[in-house]
Amino acid sequence: MSEKLTILAPGTVANMVCGFDVLGFALEDPCDEIDIALIPEKRIIIQPDPVYHLPTEPEKNVAGAALLAMLDAMDEPIGFDIAIRKHIKPGSGIGSSAASAAGAVVAANHLLHHRFSKEELVQFAMFGEKVASGVKHADNIAPCIYGGITLIRSIFPLDVVALPAPNLHVTIVHPQIEVRTADARAILKQNVLLKDAIKQWGNIAGLVAGIIQNDLPLIGRSLQDHIIEPVRSILIPGFDEIKQRSMAAGALGGGISGSGPSVFMLSADKATALAVEKEMQAVFARIGIDHHTYVTTINPQGVKLKS
Amino acid sequence: MSEKLTILAPGTVANMVCGFDVLGFALEDPCDEIDIALIPEKRIIIQPDPVYHLPTEPEKNVAGAALLAMLDAMDEPIGFDIAIRKHIKPGSGIGSSAASAAGAVVAANHLLHHRFSKEELVQFAMFGEKVASGVKHADNIAPCIYGGITLIRSIFPLDVVALPAPNLHVTIVHPQIEVRTADARAILKQNVLLKDAIKQWGNIAGLVAGIIQNDLPLIGRSLQDHIIEPVRSILIPGFDEIKQRSMAAGALGGGISGSGPSVFMLSADKATALAVEKEMQAVFARIGIDHHTYVTTINPQGVKLKS
Repeated sequence: MSEKLTILAPGTVANMVCGFDVLGFALEDPCDEIDIALIPEKRIIIQPDPVYHLPTEPEKNVAGAALLAMLDAMDEPIGFDIAIRKHIKPGSGIGSSAASAAGAVVAANHLLHHRFSKEELVQFAMFGEKVASGVKHADNIAPCIYGGITLIRSIFPLDVVALPAPNLHVTIVHPQIEVRTADARAILKQNVLLKDAIKQWGNIAGLVAGIIQNDLPLIGRSLQDHIIEPVRSILIPGFDEIKQRSMAAGALGGGISGSGPSVFMLSADKATALAVEKEMQAVFARIGIDHHTYVTTINPQGVKLKS
Repeated sequence: MSEKLTILAPGTVANMVCGFDVLGFALEDPCDEIDIALIPEKRIIIQPDPVYHLPTEPEKNVAGAALLAMLDAMDEPIGFDIAIRKHIKPGSGIGSSAASAAGAVVAANHLLHHRFSKEELVQFAMFGEKVASGVKHADNIAPCIYGGITLIRSIFPLDVVALPAPNLHVTIVHPQIEVRTADARAILKQNVLLKDAIKQWGNIAGLVAGIIQNDLPLIGRSLQDHIIEPVRSILIPGFDEIKQRSMAAGALGGGISGSGPSVFMLSADKATALAVEKEMQAVFARIGIDHHTYVTTINPQGVKLKS
């Protein structure tokens, strides 16, 4: 039995346009790296993080809280010692906390010979999200663990539907501004117009059909959000221009990643994804906001062992 | 060139549970039969209907209005003479007007050697729906013309996505009460809770994934409507009991067909669909409402030539 290993836990995009709160996907890059070792007592040890100085008390650490939930489901004198090298910046809107929480439980499950199902791992990792944001949500956790694109059909009871990963290229820009998840939630209206909701469920239905049937034009036509984006995009300077210029450069569509501030665009090929990156960089350079960009693909596998 | 033929135009179920206004499917039975003949002048002749005494002025007849829209798109001295034998009772909620409108234009298109695309035929047939209900909608027209299950991703511009027809059995009960489409529309609230809308788009996403992947348990879990059914079902006496007893008899799920009063249930096999029929009959017999039932399947083809 291997008692020690390293995994790569990918960033994820939640709130995939018309799939607010239900559709997300995993990224090939960036990934957090997590070293994990089995220890012979029922406790969790978190090694100090030299860059972000994240809490080392397990119950205050997203990975720690997820692993504690896992230990609660076992009746043995074993625990885990983990060290996380974060490459996904906290607060970027591409699932930084989910990567640590999901990565930790998947890594632990490897050491346990896959005792727990993916759905159980999602349940454990959601305790990490609760530490991060106060809410047990799975929209980043699920794609991080399953890979590809995932649908959370229902959260209580949890029903994760794994969809295939179409061969799409992803461009992400992370402007260095802060959008607090709590603010992004507070700005939403509790009521929506029925006619807008109908457009939204027509689009998510088209998006899911396009994803499963690998119909890129249908995916493009369906990437419309009539409810959340018009409200939340005002928190992201340059959003409308980013979107217009990305579409003009050939992107299929895209929107806010999670609750922002990152913005993602999907393209059919790498050349287009790189052209979109240039447009994003130009917009934020002109506005004068520091930013990072990523050009990557959809990760079909989710968390994986580092080879 | 054949100058005369007969087609079968199927009944359809619109507003497929969580797919309000966007998802519908075609039935193998019942079908309207339409005889059509080419005539050498630009006009439409509607033969009198001996049963329902429907209008014979083309512009007031659903099939006539659809054919007039088609003639408008042509520049030749030809027209059509049609006779409709209606087997789908008007007002039943299973697409009676759509069958006549869609059937007429598909039949005419056969005589024109398929000059028009399916999408164009949907556009013509929508003029028939406008005569019937005052609204140009496509949620019965589209499945009638395409067959299987159809998604109207967008109505303006029209975007019909044809989904496959899973091998499902359908039980329909038509209680002999009147639910006016206008009343069924008026009862709906213009605003819905965002949290309910999220549940609805999670479910339609799951339903579409289940349909394409032929995953019957997923279809069953996704057949939930948190928005329309709770409001409209009060117009249909016995609805809750019908649904409970159908599910107990093994149905995957179901709901109101169109704007009612018909109720449909989907089952994985014919024996279950027949058991569901018995439950439906028992409920309406006890309440004392006359009713018809149909046990059929999803029609993968839509309007077809009568052989």
